[in-house]
Amino acid sequence: MEFDTIAAISTPLGEGAIAIVRLSGDEAIQIADKLFRGKRNKRLIDVQTHTIHYGHLLDPKTGEVAEEVMVSVMKGPHTFTKEDVVEINCHGGIVSVNRVLQLVLRAGARLAEPGEFTKRAFLNGRIDLSQAEAVMDLIRAKTDRAMNVALGQMEGRLSKLIQRLRQEILETLAHVEVNIDYPEYDDVEEMTHNMLLEKANLVRVEMKKLLETSQQGKILREGLSTVIVGRPNVGKSSLLNSLVQENKAIVTDIPGTTRDVIEEYVNVRGVPLRLLDTAGIRETEDIVERIGVEKSRQVLKEADLILLVLNYSDDLTKEDENLFKAVEGMDVIVIINKTDLPQKIDMEKVKELTGKSPLVTTSLLEDQGVDDLEEAIAALFFSGSIETGDITYVSNSRHIALLHQALHTIEEAIAGVESGVPIDIVQIDFTRTWELLGEIIGESIHESLIDQLFSQFCLGK
Amino acid sequence: MEFDTIAAISTPLGEGAIAIVRLSGDEAIQIADKLFRGKRNKRLIDVQTHTIHYGHLLDPKTGEVAEEVMVSVMKGPHTFTKEDVVEINCHGGIVSVNRVLQLVLRAGARLAEPGEFTKRAFLNGRIDLSQAEAVMDLIRAKTDRAMNVALGQMEGRLSKLIQRLRQEILETLAHVEVNIDYPEYDDVEEMTHNMLLEKANLVRVEMKKLLETSQQGKILREGLSTVIVGRPNVGKSSLLNSLVQENKAIVTDIPGTTRDVIEEYVNVRGVPLRLLDTAGIRETEDIVERIGVEKSRQVLKEADLILLVLNYSDDLTKEDENLFKAVEGMDVIVIINKTDLPQKIDMEKVKELTGKSPLVTTSLLEDQGVDDLEEAIAALFFSGSIETGDITYVSNSRHIALLHQALHTIEEAIAGVESGVPIDIVQIDFTRTWELLGEIIGESIHESLIDQLFSQFCLGK
Repeated sequence: MEFDTIAAISTPLGEGAIAIVRLSGDEAIQIADKLFRGKRNKRLIDVQTHTIHYGHLLDPKTGEVAEEVMVSVMKGPHTFTKEDVVEINCHGGIVSVNRVLQLVLRAGARLAEPGEFTKRAFLNGRIDLSQAEAVMDLIRAKTDRAMNVALGQMEGRLSKLIQRLRQEILETLAHVEVNIDYPEYDDVEEMTHNMLLEKANLVRVEMKKLLETSQQGKILREGLSTVIVGRPNVGKSSLLNSLVQENKAIVTDIPGTTRDVIEEYVNVRGVPLRLLDTAGIRETEDIVERIGVEKSRQVLKEADLILLVLNYSDDLTKEDENLFKAVEGMDVIVIINKTDLPQKIDMEKVKELTGKSPLVTTSLLEDQGVDDLEEAIAALFFSGSIETGDITYVSNSRHIALLHQALHTIEEAIAGVESGVPIDIVQIDFTRTWELLGEIIGESIHESLIDQLFSQFCLGK
Repeated sequence: MEFDTIAAISTPLGEGAIAIVRLSGDEAIQIADKLFRGKRNKRLIDVQTHTIHYGHLLDPKTGEVAEEVMVSVMKGPHTFTKEDVVEINCHGGIVSVNRVLQLVLRAGARLAEPGEFTKRAFLNGRIDLSQAEAVMDLIRAKTDRAMNVALGQMEGRLSKLIQRLRQEILETLAHVEVNIDYPEYDDVEEMTHNMLLEKANLVRVEMKKLLETSQQGKILREGLSTVIVGRPNVGKSSLLNSLVQENKAIVTDIPGTTRDVIEEYVNVRGVPLRLLDTAGIRETEDIVERIGVEKSRQVLKEADLILLVLNYSDDLTKEDENLFKAVEGMDVIVIINKTDLPQKIDMEKVKELTGKSPLVTTSLLEDQGVDDLEEAIAALFFSGSIETGDITYVSNSRHIALLHQALHTIEEAIAGVESGVPIDIVQIDFTRTWELLGEIIGESIHESLIDQLFSQFCLGK
């Protein structure tokens, strides 16, 4: 395909040593060449692919030096977009990189939309849609494990699995067609029936297996939204602090307009916890008292994990019990803090209230028990250990939704076969399953959906 | 010189399309090669200089793919540091770029200190100290003009001027030496005396000229710390907003620990104004009332520019007069706002209070007068127009301080010559001037000072 030449700043905005303005398209090299002044009148249009060139960008309007740069020239198809790509490395200031971008735009490039480079890689057939989506997951990965999941997906792991399932369905459909059109044996109907059932079950099992990884995959991708609740003074802020201190906090600065949304993540044994900030904690302090058990249940419902903190050196109160009621049925870890002080809490009662939820004792003051808590968090969501290596995770909500639909249609197909529905009707469900799986990797997908997907990307990717 | 191999993340931290981990040193290529797996077993140690290579980084511990990368190999001396440099471009996420950095450090590189790459460029003789300092100024430049000043300095503009002055002094000293040792004529003493005086005056004039650019240079480099004062409800927030809206606000996110200091700059005709944020404005609302005229003078003294806002549709009050007293002797622009309403203010009285300060009338509601205000700001500091092009600015406080000292010693030399101090005593002042100028470009400078200078750089540069 042929597109116009796009350009964008591809490094995060801020003060850094180096910033990159990236161009992609047929005229990428020509546009850069117009601005570039190298040594000994070197021209970028003459250089070999995948080479780096030192020089200056001149402002064509004034003829003055606008910036000192290193320009990388990469000719398609062996590039990120399969098009000609030029990367201009300049000094990493806000003014500097904006100036380079402006020069490039004035010289004929168009400002890229968010995700447009990756979109071109997709449209030009270098990667499929699930791989393209993984690019963004990789950038936004909060922990090593999340990054590995994204990396696996980007390398085509999920795509290959999906393609295999689609191939399976396609071959089955072809087989059925042949059997019907050219019956070799008399019992063709029964044979077709059995084969359909067998294949449908095989695909169903694979899809179910994949969907089983979805909860963990989603957690790795998006993090666990975590709320710390407890009466005043039980140690909620201390808990937040020790989680942040013991684990490297990941501060994500999502570029927006002027002031940006800042979310704080904490990496607990590979599980990214998205913690409500201290202000949020203060708010929850009297949330149950203030708005009642029922209402606070609504508020807390958005959390994936509740850390309920009790005071070891104090009696259980009505407020504590209300907290237990408010979080009933949710993923809760009960933390009994202040074990450095004399016991006053009724442990029997606590155990009764806690039920099957994990129970951990800590002395945050003496830095004890945090390890146990972290283990409990990992155990609650990953049965103790997060599988590395060979599992293919599905983590993207769009993929998960499509898989659920595909599972539903294949189950309808199975039910149809079992209840003797005519083969040509069952075929429809099979075909639909094949289509739904195709949408995951970007085949048989709407253009508007593609636009919408890539618009969630960050600029310059 | 030979150093160990250093590595650092050279792009701003955050979510972006691309991040760079940079290595410099003898083993840069070998270290990258240990981790790299390219196509067809390509080895980085075999490739040509200034070439780019697609591949993956493997974790040597697990043998697993750690990241998809583009590696640029640049062999010294034609690099930023004059050493072998490798730049690993990876996906721009926080986890991803940290992983690459960790791999590189485990493979034998040392984490670079802030500014260490530029320090090597200096120590290896590629640039002098004033050029190195300009690198950081360029990154931190808040406006185009500030960037041009930094760019000029980086290209060696200031260095050349300083070198010329030093050469002038050195030749004079040599001349004096010759004259004394081998007197050709009888009136050698008078000739030497006249020549010294002439040369010293020449150098003095040049230094004075340079120092005259220092105020503007410093403003361009550091911005004008600007405070908006006025009684409640005169339109201080509206003024802030229209300055921010009409001019692109520059938000600088200085990387620190968890939450970063955010300063907001507004680019007014090339002059970067560092505006107190809205919270600050609210605080100044009753600053004079609350803490008295004398004390508020102290607070306001740190500002470079005061925008004093009055209400056109209201009488002048005692508070207004106190504000005038509080800002006496400072750079003030008086703004009479709300000209869309009927006049009540006594303009004669305002003019009297304003004195020689600029006076501007605005209707911020109707978006009128902001242009005049901007012109007044530019005029106040740059006599109406900021010179572009041919002026060599001195903008760095260290340089300015050294120039002041050098000016002082040359003036002492002149006074010495004029009052008949023996030539060999005057020579000392000459030599000292030569040394002081040398410190600007990093000759005859202490190692500890160099360390301290570069430690103010950002990481990865």
